[in-house]
Amino acid sequence: MKANKNYIEPKITLLGAGPGDPDLLTLKGYKALQNANVVLYDALVGDKILEFVNPSATKVYVGKRSGDHSYSQEVVNRLMIDYAINFGHVVRLKGGDSFVFGRGYEELEFATKHQIPVTVIPGISSSIGVPGLQHIPVTHRGVSESFWVVTGTTASGEVSGDIYSAAQSNATIVVLMGLKKLAEIVEIFKNAGKSTLPVAIVQSGSTEQEKLVLGNVDNIIQRSREEMVGAPALLVFGEVVSLHPSYKSVVENYVPIIRE
Amino acid sequence: MKANKNYIEPKITLLGAGPGDPDLLTLKGYKALQNANVVLYDALVGDKILEFVNPSATKVYVGKRSGDHSYSQEVVNRLMIDYAINFGHVVRLKGGDSFVFGRGYEELEFATKHQIPVTVIPGISSSIGVPGLQHIPVTHRGVSESFWVVTGTTASGEVSGDIYSAAQSNATIVVLMGLKKLAEIVEIFKNAGKSTLPVAIVQSGSTEQEKLVLGNVDNIIQRSREEMVGAPALLVFGEVVSLHPSYKSVVENYVPIIRE
Repeated sequence: MKANKNYIEPKITLLGAGPGDPDLLTLKGYKALQNANVVLYDALVGDKILEFVNPSATKVYVGKRSGDHSYSQEVVNRLMIDYAINFGHVVRLKGGDSFVFGRGYEELEFATKHQIPVTVIPGISSSIGVPGLQHIPVTHRGVSESFWVVTGTTASGEVSGDIYSAAQSNATIVVLMGLKKLAEIVEIFKNAGKSTLPVAIVQSGSTEQEKLVLGNVDNIIQRSREEMVGAPALLVFGEVVSLHPSYKSVVENYVPIIRE
Repeated sequence: MKANKNYIEPKITLLGAGPGDPDLLTLKGYKALQNANVVLYDALVGDKILEFVNPSATKVYVGKRSGDHSYSQEVVNRLMIDYAINFGHVVRLKGGDSFVFGRGYEELEFATKHQIPVTVIPGISSSIGVPGLQHIPVTHRGVSESFWVVTGTTASGEVSGDIYSAAQSNATIVVLMGLKKLAEIVEIFKNAGKSTLPVAIVQSGSTEQEKLVLGNVDNIIQRSREEMVGAPALLVFGEVVSLHPSYKSVVENYVPIIRE
């Protein structure tokens, strides 16, 4: 990579890579990777997607370091700007969609402050796409009229207060980054009187490591131990989970609540 | 198109086309359209996406008929099966994602009952992608820890009861197919004490007809009339809307509520 001061037009593309399967990248995303001068990417972006990057572009890893904490958001912001000024088109590539707990807006804001134009390219959010790939619809006529996507781990490290409200609602609840907090989240649903509510855990959705665990609020912790499920994983709480063909074999005599 | 009884292997792909921009189709979706024998498509799928379809495939419109009601779900289900049995690979193509108020699960269930294998390919849901393209993040650290996607129009034609709960919550609320019910929905937010909550309406997101209207619960009806916004459109209720650079010019002296 060689900085060419004569032709530099700094610009940034915030690109969502989708849940993991490289073929779930959009055509627009593919074109951006082909056009990039520099790609800044995270831990959750698979190697196969990086193969789409223009060979003359520089790929810079800004995800978690071994055993260590992530690069700070400030460092990522700074790198993004510096690369754009010196090399032109920076693609900031992350898993899922940049605006679904992806801190994408922080990067957008920082770039805008530095007068660098930003293009947003949405990605398939795992919150919808991963249950769908497992044939679990986040909405279904007569079963769910809405879905609510919550982060399991907030900036403060605590479970989001929104999970308490969500557990009281009729929505399908999708919790991202919630596996470590599973015991706490399950307790919230129990306290809301939802012990028999169906639950799915999907690990590494859309990749070769994909794994599905089905259960209900009462038995999902035991089930997740039996199946040795690990991060990254998302949780789905809702009657829609019972639509999965294997659900009956996991929870006997389950009668889904049908709303009209 | 000619049915070839010797090589028929019936299969169905439920494919989400994304919000409208053909480049927001996934690579996997593109490959499915290239591989299709028959494509059944809806009104919300743009002509440009249909250009990706293999020229030897048959394209069948199953969306709304002029002034009339849509093809019934039963008819679409039936067509899908008949085409698969007679011609092989049927791609059922619809706007957004098939499982976000798309009745995709009804089709999946029907096909499964007829022993026809179904592949699901997620699409970019307008619920996340369209606000994102407008630089409105559905989540943002310190502002929103969750987002709740609700249909504005339920099977019964009434506003979903979930909107009442949503209006009481801290989530970013995205309402799909809600423009016709705007007055009723605004009333629900007013009754929840949310008169100053920022609101965005995005019409035809990601297409050339895209239009953004910003306001708050109190003035959004007037604003939508001034701007003559029409369907298809989605509504976003939440503090995140105030992050849009034009928000200050629309609502004076707005101070966003920052949560920690």
